[in-house]
Amino acid sequence: MDSIEKVAAVRYTEGNNLAEALRGADALFVYDFLSTAVPGAWHAADRLRWLHIASAGVDPVLFPGLVESDVVLTNSRGVFDDSIAEYVLGVVLAFAKDFTRSGALQRETCWKHRETERIAGREVLVVGTGPIGRAIARLLRAAGMKVSGSGRTARGGDPDFGTVRASADLVDNLPQFDYVVAVAPLTEQTKGLFDARAFAAMKPTARFVNVGRGELVVTGDLIDALRAGEIAGAALDVFETEPLPADNPLWSMENVLLSPHMSGDFVGWRNTLVEVFADNFHRWLAGQPLDNVVDKQLGYVPSAR
Amino acid sequence: MDSIEKVAAVRYTEGNNLAEALRGADALFVYDFLSTAVPGAWHAADRLRWLHIASAGVDPVLFPGLVESDVVLTNSRGVFDDSIAEYVLGVVLAFAKDFTRSGALQRETCWKHRETERIAGREVLVVGTGPIGRAIARLLRAAGMKVSGSGRTARGGDPDFGTVRASADLVDNLPQFDYVVAVAPLTEQTKGLFDARAFAAMKPTARFVNVGRGELVVTGDLIDALRAGEIAGAALDVFETEPLPADNPLWSMENVLLSPHMSGDFVGWRNTLVEVFADNFHRWLAGQPLDNVVDKQLGYVPSAR
Repeated sequence: MDSIEKVAAVRYTEGNNLAEALRGADALFVYDFLSTAVPGAWHAADRLRWLHIASAGVDPVLFPGLVESDVVLTNSRGVFDDSIAEYVLGVVLAFAKDFTRSGALQRETCWKHRETERIAGREVLVVGTGPIGRAIARLLRAAGMKVSGSGRTARGGDPDFGTVRASADLVDNLPQFDYVVAVAPLTEQTKGLFDARAFAAMKPTARFVNVGRGELVVTGDLIDALRAGEIAGAALDVFETEPLPADNPLWSMENVLLSPHMSGDFVGWRNTLVEVFADNFHRWLAGQPLDNVVDKQLGYVPSAR
Repeated sequence: MDSIEKVAAVRYTEGNNLAEALRGADALFVYDFLSTAVPGAWHAADRLRWLHIASAGVDPVLFPGLVESDVVLTNSRGVFDDSIAEYVLGVVLAFAKDFTRSGALQRETCWKHRETERIAGREVLVVGTGPIGRAIARLLRAAGMKVSGSGRTARGGDPDFGTVRASADLVDNLPQFDYVVAVAPLTEQTKGLFDARAFAAMKPTARFVNVGRGELVVTGDLIDALRAGEIAGAALDVFETEPLPADNPLWSMENVLLSPHMSGDFVGWRNTLVEVFADNFHRWLAGQPLDNVVDKQLGYVPSAR
């Protein structure tokens, strides 16, 4: 933050003192991107013009007060793309190569040969065609998988997705895919997108991966689908409630790979997030257009494509 | 085997009755590629002209009696390449994304955020430049890693490896790599290639992957290196003794991923192996040159490149 402190008065605060710090501030950098403190302190935003958040998803700060205001919202689009893509490829391979069972057998000192699945040629649907979805599509395609996208508008000839199916037809499209990856932004349209009907439409051999937001999924429906064998497995990095409560059945399900909202968090990510803010700050100070301006109605940065 | 049974008398046998079945046979298909029965039955090979083995590595049948004979040896080159490459990419990602720890924390119902490693830009040395090594190099390169090879002859400009370093300089080359993948054929030159000196030369953060043969490694030296922190981890699909004995310390090491010689064995591999033999059989019967003829002095099929 050195380069910023040289030219601006910077106040650092925790969520519970946000209102006090926000009074008189021109810009707000929400570094703790899971913080829910902004709406409660909003009354103190007496001259705020810009809010930047250290995440790709902006749902924690997208409350009516901000949406209706003139405050510009920017996000940290791009920081997590490739790291999350690697995580997704990793869990796909963990399922295909049966790593969980290999680990269990190793702990039992049990030598048990099995046959494993190929990933080449398998069909993947990436639900969400923003930059993270694109990075996932590119990497899985490079690894030999057949990738399609699901986004607002159906279209063909996309360089990363090939075909993009319309999200409105999601349930109709699901039966053909071996892997379904959720990476859509959380909006009114995507909340609860993966419900009992969606899971029932998937192949019983399909694996579901969520690296978007927990609220994209009706968690109870996912648990039921996994128990009933409607799908074969799930890799979940995000949850409706985080940390995932200790009594949630997902913790102990053998066909579930859990991780604590870390798929994008490579060594060095925190510095990178500050650099992204600092770059935008100097642009703002120079009166240049900001990078990664969120469309507050849509709930994400509209793609140039 | 239907297409073969139509034109040839086929005898099926287990290892302990091999001598009896071998008497009078023109060709031998060693389907159980880990069988050690061939040398003991060799005296009965009174008119054998061709031996085909259902594996890529031919070390189990490469004994002096066969080497000195006129019997042609062919292998199943190509069947396992892409499947093993996927396995290697999977274990690389499992290390980078800390999957073992995620699994342990999940079993403890413990939500614990960590930072993970990127694989893009990391340096990999693939030791063994045959078709399996090439498939590994191609896939890891497609996933963004920096790949080099180690083979008999140093050379540049290789389409898959970029630079190939001379195996003779292996220990000098090792310090630069984040991942070292052993996939060389087992020969007099490669036996015990990975010993205390090799592990000491690797980065303390390096991971070692063995999908070649267990005998490429001095197992005791590997265990010492892992315990001493000379390397950070190992993913092992092959072992000096298979099944790996229950009292081997590798079973219980947290930084070791074990699997029971299955990295290449995708669903359908057994049928594919029979098809490879049948294709070669019909070529043989028609007097055409056989595919995948092993150089019995080198111990593998020499590459066209």
